[in-house]
Amino acid sequence: MNLEPILFENDCLKIIDQTRLPDKFIYINLPDLKSVCKAIRSLKIRGAPAIGITAAYGFFVAANALAKKKKLNTDALLSLAEKLIGLRPTAVNLSWAVKRMQDEYKKHSDDTSIEQVVDALRNKAIMIHQEEKAACEKIGESGEKLIPQPANIMTHCNAGILATGGIGTALAPVYKSMGSGKNVHVFVNETRPVGQGARLTYWELNYNKVPCTLITDNMAGWIMKSKKIDLVITGADRITANGDTANKIGTYALAILAKYHKVPFYVAAPLSTFDFKIPDGYNIMIEERDKEEITNFWNIKKKRLYKVMNPAFDVTPASLITGYITPAGIFNRIENLTY
Amino acid sequence: MNLEPILFENDCLKIIDQTRLPDKFIYINLPDLKSVCKAIRSLKIRGAPAIGITAAYGFFVAANALAKKKKLNTDALLSLAEKLIGLRPTAVNLSWAVKRMQDEYKKHSDDTSIEQVVDALRNKAIMIHQEEKAACEKIGESGEKLIPQPANIMTHCNAGILATGGIGTALAPVYKSMGSGKNVHVFVNETRPVGQGARLTYWELNYNKVPCTLITDNMAGWIMKSKKIDLVITGADRITANGDTANKIGTYALAILAKYHKVPFYVAAPLSTFDFKIPDGYNIMIEERDKEEITNFWNIKKKRLYKVMNPAFDVTPASLITGYITPAGIFNRIENLTY
Repeated sequence: MNLEPILFENDCLKIIDQTRLPDKFIYINLPDLKSVCKAIRSLKIRGAPAIGITAAYGFFVAANALAKKKKLNTDALLSLAEKLIGLRPTAVNLSWAVKRMQDEYKKHSDDTSIEQVVDALRNKAIMIHQEEKAACEKIGESGEKLIPQPANIMTHCNAGILATGGIGTALAPVYKSMGSGKNVHVFVNETRPVGQGARLTYWELNYNKVPCTLITDNMAGWIMKSKKIDLVITGADRITANGDTANKIGTYALAILAKYHKVPFYVAAPLSTFDFKIPDGYNIMIEERDKEEITNFWNIKKKRLYKVMNPAFDVTPASLITGYITPAGIFNRIENLTY
Repeated sequence: MNLEPILFENDCLKIIDQTRLPDKFIYINLPDLKSVCKAIRSLKIRGAPAIGITAAYGFFVAANALAKKKKLNTDALLSLAEKLIGLRPTAVNLSWAVKRMQDEYKKHSDDTSIEQVVDALRNKAIMIHQEEKAACEKIGESGEKLIPQPANIMTHCNAGILATGGIGTALAPVYKSMGSGKNVHVFVNETRPVGQGARLTYWELNYNKVPCTLITDNMAGWIMKSKKIDLVITGADRITANGDTANKIGTYALAILAKYHKVPFYVAAPLSTFDFKIPDGYNIMIEERDKEEITNFWNIKKKRLYKVMNPAFDVTPASLITGYITPAGIFNRIENLTY
């Protein structure tokens, strides 16, 4: 599992350009705030934890540049933070990571040396990355207990290495089970409109030699009926206080299909994805993305004739979720979670 | 609604090349059996009733060519029929139309004049086309009673003009309601992998000025939850004696989502789609199509690395179907149907 979607070396930030996968496996440099924002906005990096890590490093890169120009101050960092947080409103990890960077700055803003402030921010960003990696490992350990031998697992979108910088959230139990010699097979929903399943999940599972089969999203119900699916595991972009879960569009329908077929449906997420400030799913803001994500596929030239809805996420009510696979164990109600 | 996907004039067969829609609206000639087979196989014409009509005309075109070469005989027509029927195993209308053409030949094969046989076959093919058109009109009249004012309807795949040669099956009640002044709006599922919803249904609804919104298949559940959907109507490729219905992949999942959200789910079909010889859905043969239909979208070059499932259809059990909209009225159990 030695695949690193986010690299940070000598104060330089690099990411795999995920929009080029599976055809091209290349890293791109993100030398400044502008390139970081563009990469997040255009989905070159995506997945709630990976966005958070990239934003933390991006915060550092921008703060470092400001420091060199002697312009590092509270106002500049506030404007920087706002820019980053506004990029993807649904993923809670983004604002969580940026706020931690801001807090770190506040803690050190009275330090005499600007170098010390920069060092503190660098260390904090690295720590956020390391924490997410450790969280993935623990999610894997928690979730592996749910995986029978042999196992047929279904997943949606990409909640793997590429999404987290670690071994993933939804895919962590899969990788851990492989590691301990279980025979796992994964049905990968392609995940329209952007194809994170087809392009990313299939690619990284294949890269790590996990047997898998690609299907279109609308086949999931039929596969549950005609094949034996042991469980569904998805990631999450935001989990509210009552357990309602925002995740990639299609997750809600998948949870209903799982319930209908009596297939257990699990959500895997680090603790940073839980947002106790939001009482339930009705209060989650859902990002609406460009209609071109949908029309581009179909050789539709006269786009103005096309009225399209493109919510990037949906909300799965807690009642449809069998359990939450977290670094702290598996829970079937978020109330049981303790930090 | 003056849109003709299948034209037959002066013994020449022309169809709209539906693989070029929505970008190009062009007719192509089908001058011989080979071109007819290729058009059906490559989905230039698709939709169970339209395939049946095209196969009937194709049967005539081929028989006419054989007659000119003095090679029109039972064996030649049997081989011809087998070729046509094998093209798309799930659509019952195809074998139904071809068998009617064969029966017509048998009825006339003792006629003294070969011209009379050819005339009889021509008339039979035209009659099959006219019957399908009339059936669509009646489906529209039956189904219009189900459409409230105003109405929000969801549909999957294309069961409209392009699929039938008439005003459609699933879309017939929509067109009839428009005609009688109701405010209808249609949510169109794009229908992966081939995009009949995005490319064909949206195009023909727009061509006929019916307001509609395009969504990806995995949004259907979320739309049912967040918008008021009055009913779902789909077409059918084959309906068995107990009411189980084979239709485009994704229909089964859509029916489960409709049931979960208490949205009525209707199947619209001409009587030719009902196949009483098959007791239930377990006995329907499901066509598996090329994996390229799925991988082509995602810039996947190394296709050999990709294991893909691509069932073209699924089977929705009768228990998930609120009713069948037929030319003979609306039924909630197929046992009630009488010819």
